[in-house]
Amino acid sequence: MAQKSAPDSTRRSEKSRRAIYAAALALVAEVGYPRTTVEGIAARAGVGKQTIYRWWPSKADVLLEAFLDLSGQAAEAAAAAGEEYAIPDTGDLAADLKDVLRATVDELLDEQFQAPYRALAAEGVVNEKISSEFVSRLLEPQLQLYVRRLEAAQEAGEVRPGIDPRIALELFVAPLAQRWLQRSGPLSHAYTDTLVDYALNGLAPR
Amino acid sequence: MAQKSAPDSTRRSEKSRRAIYAAALALVAEVGYPRTTVEGIAARAGVGKQTIYRWWPSKADVLLEAFLDLSGQAAEAAAAAGEEYAIPDTGDLAADLKDVLRATVDELLDEQFQAPYRALAAEGVVNEKISSEFVSRLLEPQLQLYVRRLEAAQEAGEVRPGIDPRIALELFVAPLAQRWLQRSGPLSHAYTDTLVDYALNGLAPR
Repeated sequence: MAQKSAPDSTRRSEKSRRAIYAAALALVAEVGYPRTTVEGIAARAGVGKQTIYRWWPSKADVLLEAFLDLSGQAAEAAAAAGEEYAIPDTGDLAADLKDVLRATVDELLDEQFQAPYRALAAEGVVNEKISSEFVSRLLEPQLQLYVRRLEAAQEAGEVRPGIDPRIALELFVAPLAQRWLQRSGPLSHAYTDTLVDYALNGLAPR
Repeated sequence: MAQKSAPDSTRRSEKSRRAIYAAALALVAEVGYPRTTVEGIAARAGVGKQTIYRWWPSKADVLLEAFLDLSGQAAEAAAAAGEEYAIPDTGDLAADLKDVLRATVDELLDEQFQAPYRALAAEGVVNEKISSEFVSRLLEPQLQLYVRRLEAAQEAGEVRPGIDPRIALELFVAPLAQRWLQRSGPLSHAYTDTLVDYALNGLAPR
């Protein structure tokens, strides 16, 4: 990409924005979401409180944007490396789903990632505005990757024609999400492997 | 059950406890969890703030006990009516699961029930102590009803012998929980019916 010559003020804003995201993610990881304040984020980022309030109405909004920025960076890095931002298609649906879910388990068990993502998810449970942004901009685009992989599997005859991929993906994605969100059971590769086997083959005898 | 002659102080305590539960549930429904305070609960219940703090360390603990009390009452009412506190077994697993999940959808869409239950679930996402109490005392006992129904289906040959019922139930329970918690999709009877069909028959062609 060609380097654009940005005016100084734009460059300064961009630098502040990055510093604010980094400060928000770090603070939530360190002191927890309830004790993270806009004042605290501002102090750590080295900006005035008003700079934050000019751009975002609340700490939840800052955190959401910080996550969107992270996932945007991941997509850009993949594109720069010439990789497609998609679930791999090796022609073996079960193997591909197990791979991506194992990677998700590793990510969810990573402490650095966990605290702010959990905070955002919790805020969404009681805050409908944050929830709708979280779902439409962060969760749903991730789920659509599964939709596309399941559609390809349908064309390849690995998934029944009548199945709605948007509902089907929930059979293995939602159990993992619930165990992580509600801490209702342990997360492991064996667990997500089992979910994929049960979902593809069904609980009833064949 | 024989009526025990309780000392006045026990009766007074019991009356305060019920009033505190009712006040906590009502307040959360009316002003939301973040704006519900122990002071507010005390004022509405007509007790001193210290009465609450003598029994519970936080508003989250009050709310959890209020829910446990509600579900204890439901179990007692079922027992008094001579009903078993279990998922019905008509010999048709799909029909029985669809019935109970339809009833759960109705409950989750009930505004009265929703606000405090959602508040408790959200608190659990970021509060490990509340989460562990919520899961062990409220969520897991409900999930064990599905375990028992799936075990009966296994004996009847409706579920494959190798299946772990505790994981299997998550294929239809967790998607409903996630849509409700994260507002990631609409809830309806058609949706939960579909989950049961997909889970029992599998996504792969038979």
